[in-house]
Amino acid sequence: MVTYPGLPGPIICDYLSREASRGRYGPGVEFQIGKIEMVANTGTYLDSPFHRYAGGKDLSALPLDSLANLDTVVIRIGGGSVRAIPRAAFQDVPVQGRAVLVHTGWDAHWRTERYLSGNPFLTADAAEYLVSQDVRLVGIDSVNIDDIDDPARPVHSTLLGADVPIVEHMCRLNLLPDRDVRFFAVPAKVAGFGTWPVRAFGVVST
Amino acid sequence: MVTYPGLPGPIICDYLSREASRGRYGPGVEFQIGKIEMVANTGTYLDSPFHRYAGGKDLSALPLDSLANLDTVVIRIGGGSVRAIPRAAFQDVPVQGRAVLVHTGWDAHWRTERYLSGNPFLTADAAEYLVSQDVRLVGIDSVNIDDIDDPARPVHSTLLGADVPIVEHMCRLNLLPDRDVRFFAVPAKVAGFGTWPVRAFGVVST
Repeated sequence: MVTYPGLPGPIICDYLSREASRGRYGPGVEFQIGKIEMVANTGTYLDSPFHRYAGGKDLSALPLDSLANLDTVVIRIGGGSVRAIPRAAFQDVPVQGRAVLVHTGWDAHWRTERYLSGNPFLTADAAEYLVSQDVRLVGIDSVNIDDIDDPARPVHSTLLGADVPIVEHMCRLNLLPDRDVRFFAVPAKVAGFGTWPVRAFGVVST
Repeated sequence: MVTYPGLPGPIICDYLSREASRGRYGPGVEFQIGKIEMVANTGTYLDSPFHRYAGGKDLSALPLDSLANLDTVVIRIGGGSVRAIPRAAFQDVPVQGRAVLVHTGWDAHWRTERYLSGNPFLTADAAEYLVSQDVRLVGIDSVNIDDIDDPARPVHSTLLGADVPIVEHMCRLNLLPDRDVRFFAVPAKVAGFGTWPVRAFGVVST
């Protein structure tokens, strides 16, 4: 499974197979212990500032309340034909102090060639606006929150420079309402690591 | 960092170093992408039925509502001197249909030799009682929810056999109240994998 162009997919194998485990346990009892080798940027993942900045917070330094139970708004970008998502997409929405999820529908292309290029992304100006509004986290259902063809990566630089975590490769944002969502994207606390796969989800008020 | 006796700690390195990344990005822009090699049972982790049973649910098959936003009770096992935690520890507590976290204080020994043997654990009878009460998940701040010296592993067998996920190596359960906690321990959806590190936490009603 390739998540990002140029990065290898994870390698999974047995560390302890069920067969080999039988000698360690009682009659009829067996376990399997897997081993994984993976790059940080695998699956749906969360970036901490350390991914971009050597002096930035790593996964172990992220406060829990920057990752969990976040009051959240979902922005719908229509039709799948928009690439550059501008400041104006956020200006009429109550983003201040909230997490912001950007629903583009690009996840429809996951695991196809099309997913890996020509992605929807935020403009540098949009990122600056979101930071000016003290947003807590920004997520998107795209291969990159930056234009994958722009080596300046202004959105990563601006958001992570302001301690705003980023979630990429989200999917099924259509299942969330636009408002009244509590969002969770909580990586393991791995010191010296900048990015980690997450099972991201929203809890909806009922 | 060794989590469990006999299992290797994780190996972390650069996949793409900041220095090497500079050629890929614009002036002044750099990223670090880490690589990790780890066994599934690393850090605080959640076991799915697949860890014990070849036909059991793996991480990717666990319903989100078996892992997140769980109505939870915390059981306090006093003094750190009790090893075998019996059915009676749960019988006067409203465990039915809830997640149950067992606070023993054993996390005080984390990263010492003492942590790795002589652990507090649930009895087979306690596990059967919890399943009879339709508990949703069981967590403990110990190196193993079973007696590490009992190769029959009855608690893993009973709980995972009833689709009840297990969280081990928890810490700081003293920070949670006994009741009115919503508990979260959400692993990445890794197919063919049985166990995964989690940043487990409770949301407390205020």
